[in-house]
Amino acid sequence: MPAPHPAPHAFDLYDTTLRDGSQQEGLTLSVSDKLAVARLLDELGVTYIEGGWPGAVPKDTEFFRRAAAGELELGRARLAAFGATRRAGIPVEQDEQVRALVDSEAPTVTLVAKSDLRHVTGALRTTAEENLAMVRDTVAHLVGLGREVFVDAEHFFDGFLADPAHTTGVVLAAFEAGAAVVVLCDTNGGMLPHLVAEVVADLTSRLEAAGMAPGDGRRLGVHTHNDSGCAVANALTAVRGGITHVQGCVNGYGERTGNADLVTMLADLQLKMGIDLVPADALAEATRIATAIGEIVNLPVSPRAPYVGASAFAHKAGLHASAIRVDPDLYQHMDPREVGNDMRMIISEMAGRASIELKGRELGFDLTGEQDTLARLAARVKQREAAGYSYEAADASFELLVLHELGRSPHYFEVESWRATSHQLRDGTLETEATVKLGGGGPLGHDARTVAIAEGNGPVNALDLALRAALRGPYPQIDDFELRDFKVRILDAHRGTDATTRVLVRTAGLGLTFQTVGVGPNLIEASWEAITDAYTYGFHKAGV
Amino acid sequence: MPAPHPAPHAFDLYDTTLRDGSQQEGLTLSVSDKLAVARLLDELGVTYIEGGWPGAVPKDTEFFRRAAAGELELGRARLAAFGATRRAGIPVEQDEQVRALVDSEAPTVTLVAKSDLRHVTGALRTTAEENLAMVRDTVAHLVGLGREVFVDAEHFFDGFLADPAHTTGVVLAAFEAGAAVVVLCDTNGGMLPHLVAEVVADLTSRLEAAGMAPGDGRRLGVHTHNDSGCAVANALTAVRGGITHVQGCVNGYGERTGNADLVTMLADLQLKMGIDLVPADALAEATRIATAIGEIVNLPVSPRAPYVGASAFAHKAGLHASAIRVDPDLYQHMDPREVGNDMRMIISEMAGRASIELKGRELGFDLTGEQDTLARLAARVKQREAAGYSYEAADASFELLVLHELGRSPHYFEVESWRATSHQLRDGTLETEATVKLGGGGPLGHDARTVAIAEGNGPVNALDLALRAALRGPYPQIDDFELRDFKVRILDAHRGTDATTRVLVRTAGLGLTFQTVGVGPNLIEASWEAITDAYTYGFHKAGV
Repeated sequence: MPAPHPAPHAFDLYDTTLRDGSQQEGLTLSVSDKLAVARLLDELGVTYIEGGWPGAVPKDTEFFRRAAAGELELGRARLAAFGATRRAGIPVEQDEQVRALVDSEAPTVTLVAKSDLRHVTGALRTTAEENLAMVRDTVAHLVGLGREVFVDAEHFFDGFLADPAHTTGVVLAAFEAGAAVVVLCDTNGGMLPHLVAEVVADLTSRLEAAGMAPGDGRRLGVHTHNDSGCAVANALTAVRGGITHVQGCVNGYGERTGNADLVTMLADLQLKMGIDLVPADALAEATRIATAIGEIVNLPVSPRAPYVGASAFAHKAGLHASAIRVDPDLYQHMDPREVGNDMRMIISEMAGRASIELKGRELGFDLTGEQDTLARLAARVKQREAAGYSYEAADASFELLVLHELGRSPHYFEVESWRATSHQLRDGTLETEATVKLGGGGPLGHDARTVAIAEGNGPVNALDLALRAALRGPYPQIDDFELRDFKVRILDAHRGTDATTRVLVRTAGLGLTFQTVGVGPNLIEASWEAITDAYTYGFHKAGV
Repeated sequence: MPAPHPAPHAFDLYDTTLRDGSQQEGLTLSVSDKLAVARLLDELGVTYIEGGWPGAVPKDTEFFRRAAAGELELGRARLAAFGATRRAGIPVEQDEQVRALVDSEAPTVTLVAKSDLRHVTGALRTTAEENLAMVRDTVAHLVGLGREVFVDAEHFFDGFLADPAHTTGVVLAAFEAGAAVVVLCDTNGGMLPHLVAEVVADLTSRLEAAGMAPGDGRRLGVHTHNDSGCAVANALTAVRGGITHVQGCVNGYGERTGNADLVTMLADLQLKMGIDLVPADALAEATRIATAIGEIVNLPVSPRAPYVGASAFAHKAGLHASAIRVDPDLYQHMDPREVGNDMRMIISEMAGRASIELKGRELGFDLTGEQDTLARLAARVKQREAAGYSYEAADASFELLVLHELGRSPHYFEVESWRATSHQLRDGTLETEATVKLGGGGPLGHDARTVAIAEGNGPVNALDLALRAALRGPYPQIDDFELRDFKVRILDAHRGTDATTRVLVRTAGLGLTFQTVGVGPNLIEASWEAITDAYTYGFHKAGV
């Protein structure tokens, strides 16, 4: 490895998943989702979290309100609010969107400013001078109110290539008014690394000539998009040119082809370019965090994503196992554990058993040397995964599978039958109810046959409540557990309403949180499986 | 745009989708699939198609056999067979895998050779000298038989950084024996652009010093992987350093994180770096070809793929829409039609009046100047999106919303009531049925009250079938439409089974495909909304 780049005095890893990232087609977040994502970003160790555009997007205004009210406890990250420079022709104090930025109470404000003359005249329909005034006024206003101010120079590279003097002028105006960072944005995403290097070098010398060389109080940043397939490389090239602030989104979310993938940039900078950005143990959580954000956003991490994808360290079929054992470094560019990923996803029967043995050990089963059991388990897992089950995110269901193979299935109740009904009446009211019948015999004894009914706001909710009602008598411990999270994925969606459904349920109670999975052609049936597994597992863990 | 790079005498666009690409997890091709993909690659205009590894992979042996028998008529591309240098310690004439390369009858043969000393000794367990002999013997043997020979220098960059003299020696040996191209492979994918630039420059001066400077008869190539997120950028950087042969896979297929995306590289090289590789009208087929290959391989193109992805030119932010109305080039890095793609507006909570006006125009509504209507529509969209609706992926529901605001809602039936029941019986059988009652009055007249029942494999499927049964009488056109895709998203999932549900349904019929959305606290209710909207929209489009 080459010698590490000397760490600069300050370097920002700035995340804009909640603002630019949410401009991706198909990505819509509730305010609660945004708060959950923000907490995960903070765990990763990012320097800034751009929470959204208060005043322009109602959910974002609400996000900042709830964050200020104490719902978001951040450990390392600073919250930033995004917005625009004041509108042309009005005093900054009268601009409502600027006021909304102040009202958000975010300590840092990032303002997007036009830096490409063609956009100033063509899109904003104003003059270069007024645009510079808009930049100065808004920056100075917010600095005067005690905010840390960053300026996103929109269309910076295209603007600079068309008119370097004008675009440099915008950067100078921002710094002169007190901006701490000016971010060079490749808004259209069309840049290539060699052009980025040339522009950054040219800008830097123009700033030096103007007596405004970048330094501690005045830093340059970069914000790239992937339209030429070079978002990450363009950002790294800018860093090589002296930039000390990179902006990106987790899982490369963002408008059109997306923003630079934040985790890819983080890993490249920290593990290959010697720029320490987050604690090593936070980086080791990257895979888990990227995956969790993908689940919240319902746009799962691509299996091929660098560093964190499920296939990122999966080796060729047919590669002789002994060759890998010689030295994993011969076949891997780095140790996957540094980013919390796993080398052990190899497609071969031998590796299948090894994974299961290790997983079993994690769960407290010693299966060392139990070749038959491991082989049976590996075959069962493959079979069920082919049917749609996914044990990656359902440790509790996996544990129940292992117990079943070992002949030790926990068994607390017999299900005799269940029914769920939704109907919309003539007057438009919706009624949903479910009945559950638990059999006599089984663990509860012959007299224990129970029938219960419950109403709910949907068939799955009603079934859950009815099951709880039926179990409460013999198992009051049911009230210690609560279903927290309920995710549905339609597999083979192209088969329309005939497709197979997979449901993941997260349950919490007695200090534990665990996930169970259910699969079926019918959402209700799949949910029923995940829910009954959840209570069975919960009782088992509670030592019932 | 910067001045075009002067076109070199020869430049190869070398595709390895059928060999390296097929090592991706989840990708299995039949021989017929491979032939179909090869024909599409030829249409795109690639210089070489690496068809596979004959002798090592049975399907690949068969592919070359059928190609040689006349089943593959190539217009522009040359077929290449991939294989390895002879095994250590045996004469090349006795190596069966080398024989298989000859038997494939491919005019070009690409040999992978160890170029990293640690692999020579550690993995191959042989000496540096023997490895050089393996390279020389195999290249000379195949050149002697009239083949054009390329050598893939495996682990080139890692090997060069560890021992530049040894690795350069392998390159020299290959050229001396008659190889036309030596391909520098970043096999582990860990390179970054600045390191690639340094290595290529250093190698070039060492080759010059040895009297073997790259030139027409001796060219350097590059083969990159995306483990650092820089596959495309690394290849382009190598090209800037003088390389005249790039290897990649369509849609970035390949093991682990994949190979460099061939189409991204092609578009960057031809449209931004002035290196003409394929005819302009072939490049304009890139989106169709990439999509078609994705369908054959059953790994669809990512919506966010540069140039060819469905979202690559889809604009969401309201700010972008108002500028695009002025001039599309303000927010696009190039004209999508050059690669056969399309600009689209996405309606979402970020939609301002401009987005809605442009979207309306796409759908055939002229709302120019209708400020009140646009303002009402924008407000309605924001309100409904805050409630959980998502119009991004539901153009048909958006169109119905516009018609509603214009007082022109299409109305085909009155829903009186509906009911859906799922029950699991004592013997474990699952029964699901639904009834739908459509009211008299309304568009069908007083006598038209209808009740229908249907069974299905889930409550939503059953309701859909019951609704179709009820509508079939008055509207036989219902049979022209089919529900194709069904996506469920639980919003606020942390509220467990109490959460709000959003359902997106895709319907096809009469040459159209469209999506509708439904939202409710109850999955069934949300689905019902999406389904009734779908049939209403379908009938409206059918001119019923």
